[in-house]
Amino acid sequence: MTNTAANPTPSQIIKEFPLTFFRGIGQVMFQDSIWTGIFFTIGIFWGAYASHTPAVAWGMLLGTFVSTLAGYLMGLKDSNGSQGLWGFNGCLVGCALPTFLGNTIWMWLAIIFCSAMTTWVRSGLDNVWGKWNLSTFTFPFVLCTWFFLLAARAMHGMPPVEESAPAFPVEGSTALSLGFVDLVIYWLKGISQVFLINSWVTGAIFLVGLAVSSWRAALWCAISSAVALLVIILWQGPGADIAAGLYGFSAVLTGIALGATFCNYSWKAAVWAVLGVIATVFIQAAMNIFFAPIGLATLTGPFCIATWLFLLPAYPWFMPKSN
Amino acid sequence: MTNTAANPTPSQIIKEFPLTFFRGIGQVMFQDSIWTGIFFTIGIFWGAYASHTPAVAWGMLLGTFVSTLAGYLMGLKDSNGSQGLWGFNGCLVGCALPTFLGNTIWMWLAIIFCSAMTTWVRSGLDNVWGKWNLSTFTFPFVLCTWFFLLAARAMHGMPPVEESAPAFPVEGSTALSLGFVDLVIYWLKGISQVFLINSWVTGAIFLVGLAVSSWRAALWCAISSAVALLVIILWQGPGADIAAGLYGFSAVLTGIALGATFCNYSWKAAVWAVLGVIATVFIQAAMNIFFAPIGLATLTGPFCIATWLFLLPAYPWFMPKSN
Amino acid sequence: MTNTAANPTPSQIIKEFPLTFFRGIGQVMFQDSIWTGIFFTIGIFWGAYASHTPAVAWGMLLGTFVSTLAGYLMGLKDSNGSQGLWGFNGCLVGCALPTFLGNTIWMWLAIIFCSAMTTWVRSGLDNVWGKWNLSTFTFPFVLCTWFFLLAARAMHGMPPVEESAPAFPVEGSTALSLGFVDLVIYWLKGISQVFLINSWVTGAIFLVGLAVSSWRAALWCAISSAVALLVIILWQGPGADIAAGLYGFSAVLTGIALGATFCNYSWKAAVWAVLGVIATVFIQAAMNIFFAPIGLATLTGPFCIATWLFLLPAYPWFMPKSN
Repeated sequence: MTNTAANPTPSQIIKEFPLTFFRGIGQVMFQDSIWTGIFFTIGIFWGAYASHTPAVAWGMLLGTFVSTLAGYLMGLKDSNGSQGLWGFNGCLVGCALPTFLGNTIWMWLAIIFCSAMTTWVRSGLDNVWGKWNLSTFTFPFVLCTWFFLLAARAMHGMPPVEESAPAFPVEGSTALSLGFVDLVIYWLKGISQVFLINSWVTGAIFLVGLAVSSWRAALWCAISSAVALLVIILWQGPGADIAAGLYGFSAVLTGIALGATFCNYSWKAAVWAVLGVIATVFIQAAMNIFFAPIGLATLTGPFCIATWLFLLPAYPWFMPKSN
Repeated sequence: MTNTAANPTPSQIIKEFPLTFFRGIGQVMFQDSIWTGIFFTIGIFWGAYASHTPAVAWGMLLGTFVSTLAGYLMGLKDSNGSQGLWGFNGCLVGCALPTFLGNTIWMWLAIIFCSAMTTWVRSGLDNVWGKWNLSTFTFPFVLCTWFFLLAARAMHGMPPVEESAPAFPVEGSTALSLGFVDLVIYWLKGISQVFLINSWVTGAIFLVGLAVSSWRAALWCAISSAVALLVIILWQGPGADIAAGLYGFSAVLTGIALGATFCNYSWKAAVWAVLGVIATVFIQAAMNIFFAPIGLATLTGPFCIATWLFLLPAYPWFMPKSN
Repeated sequence: MTNTAANPTPSQIIKEFPLTFFRGIGQVMFQDSIWTGIFFTIGIFWGAYASHTPAVAWGMLLGTFVSTLAGYLMGLKDSNGSQGLWGFNGCLVGCALPTFLGNTIWMWLAIIFCSAMTTWVRSGLDNVWGKWNLSTFTFPFVLCTWFFLLAARAMHGMPPVEESAPAFPVEGSTALSLGFVDLVIYWLKGISQVFLINSWVTGAIFLVGLAVSSWRAALWCAISSAVALLVIILWQGPGADIAAGLYGFSAVLTGIALGATFCNYSWKAAVWAVLGVIATVFIQAAMNIFFAPIGLATLTGPFCIATWLFLLPAYPWFMPKSN
């Protein structure tokens, strides 16, 4: 149950706010680190401007700001906020809405409402998931953004521009260049797509940002994107999506969650994390097909589902000692 | 956990039945009042006959009767029943099936089965939702009716007649008259659509019926339909749906639930209720799009989802004292 | 919470394995009996070879083997395994993937991964469902297989061959021969389709296999397929599906679960089981329509949903004494 703690004074809040803000960006990949958040911000700005979609970067800042502020305004327990746990869902809302929707005033108001909403939806859903000692991960972002992306199809005020057209699922072409340099690019884009950025440079910056906080997280990020790439190439998925890193981002998050965050660091747990990454690839493909008739993006839903399924059994051999 | 209480005698049941029956109709908008139930009945009969769909009104009576009777027959705890909590889901089943399906004998048998089913589905789902001190609201109606409306597409015995054709979601026209009288009519129809009635007169009768039981419920009903209308006009939703009140009915229920029923009556809680109403509009639009390929109506699903999301955080500043 | 027990020695495991293996096949219809498992195996081989799809039978053996082995390898509590509760989900995975997908090496690797996955998904979901004293039934099979069947549409490595084409739901023809012999064939095929086999001989063998373990289970199997057939004919469902037994298999499982396994054996509970079977038919039709735009099979999902809805209320008059 969420409690209000002794409220910090306004001057404390203003002093802490920049730290909480950048930690929120770092927490998208589970890092309670302002330096990771700063590297991620650099990577996002690079990728957004390189692809001529600067609104994604500014939306990201706005979403993180609003969702963090919402935590303070509602007087939520501060330990959560100071770790950046109010901001990461709003951060992703701010990346997602300008990626898929037209740049209108109503879209920006939607970012404000939707990113604030993730803060209280998260504390509400935590009361549900907490019964099984699970985190809701990025699901508050996924759920609230699904509402707004779908609603956009019914609202001329914020029309979809980059969303897939609703269609029956059809097999995509598997054509894909498999040169070494190409593979490295797909692998790095799988990492950058965590923030909906399609840029190998951004992927490399994200890896550095992770390594600054945790070499283990950076390692699992690298492993997971590679394993996902291998699996989807072997099973011959759609070439264009593979090249854009769209089979990597959920797997990356599953790998960091299982390999470097919520399990112990044994060899058994490492095998478990790899199995989780493989499962994520199939769940990603399944959700892509499931959402095709409404043209909706899965966002990081496949990561949430896979990671819950691999944490729920709570086998002693992968549970961390401190638990 | 549902218990059987000391069973009332048959003569007690017969004496109480009319009270329990009309309370069931009133409970659709959270009013434990036979007078509200009687006003609602009048409004439904007016609207159903005015639109030449009398089966909706008679179906409503049948559904309320059967679901209430099911509660007695299964020996459920009587305090629930005497407040009308067995009848409101069946009441809505009885409005919904004749609205969307052809008037065949199999449709009437489906009303009987489906409305009885809501009574035990409700006591079952209450065991789930109760772990978080949540009500299932109208979700037993929504779930069971979804089963039967979808099944109808596979069954010539009760063919759909008024359901939307399955189609990919496309943006509707935003054309809408915005004169003052028009807006008042949309606003009242948003209220009447709670019972699937498209009539501003019925909406006005419902407001009176609420005021007889609780001025606060009537006030929040009025506010919520107006706020929803404002939001969907600003974001430029589909004109025909707005004019028919189809963006109002879920918002109305969210507003009465959060503003006048399950939260305290502070200013903070009032702001919370307005935020909940705004969220409901986007969830309504999202679910309309999500269900387009199967041509299914959302029913009051958006209200259930929005209200759960706004009650789950259980912040102390909106919780009622008695809780 | 799942615990690891004192691990059996390898020689114990090898000795027990055949028993655990066939019990796993029997548990698809709730029978902790190697003889039922052997009869089911015979029935499946007969049906698979008769319809020139031997891969279904061999896939069934592989899936049961892998999922049972996964239980031993992960050191799950042995009492579960010795009752066959590790194997039944994998058994169904092994029937389903070769039924719907092309016979490629990647499909066989998918059977291995997917059937092993059901074992840990089951122990994870049991931690969720267990809060309400519910079993997850075949839902681990349903969920994991949905992932792989949907993913197959995006993967040339294991292309769908027998899956329905994605399409808007349209009413099927109700044309159906209603001679006595025809009805008996539909009735028996409703039973054989539990394992995705379309053969009245197999259905008869399954009935015998059930009777060897429990006359009550065989009786409820027979009743349920008949009741489902009656309901879907009265409501005039699609003739081709009825003739193939596709409205029977979920109802059969609901009937055995409610009538012969999880409730007491009173007359009231028998009425309850029949109501549950009727509800299953409508949920089956509804899910068929819901999945039409993505061309996905419901698998035994309708059985899971119906049976949960009828067990959740936990009314004293249907609960078994030992509970």
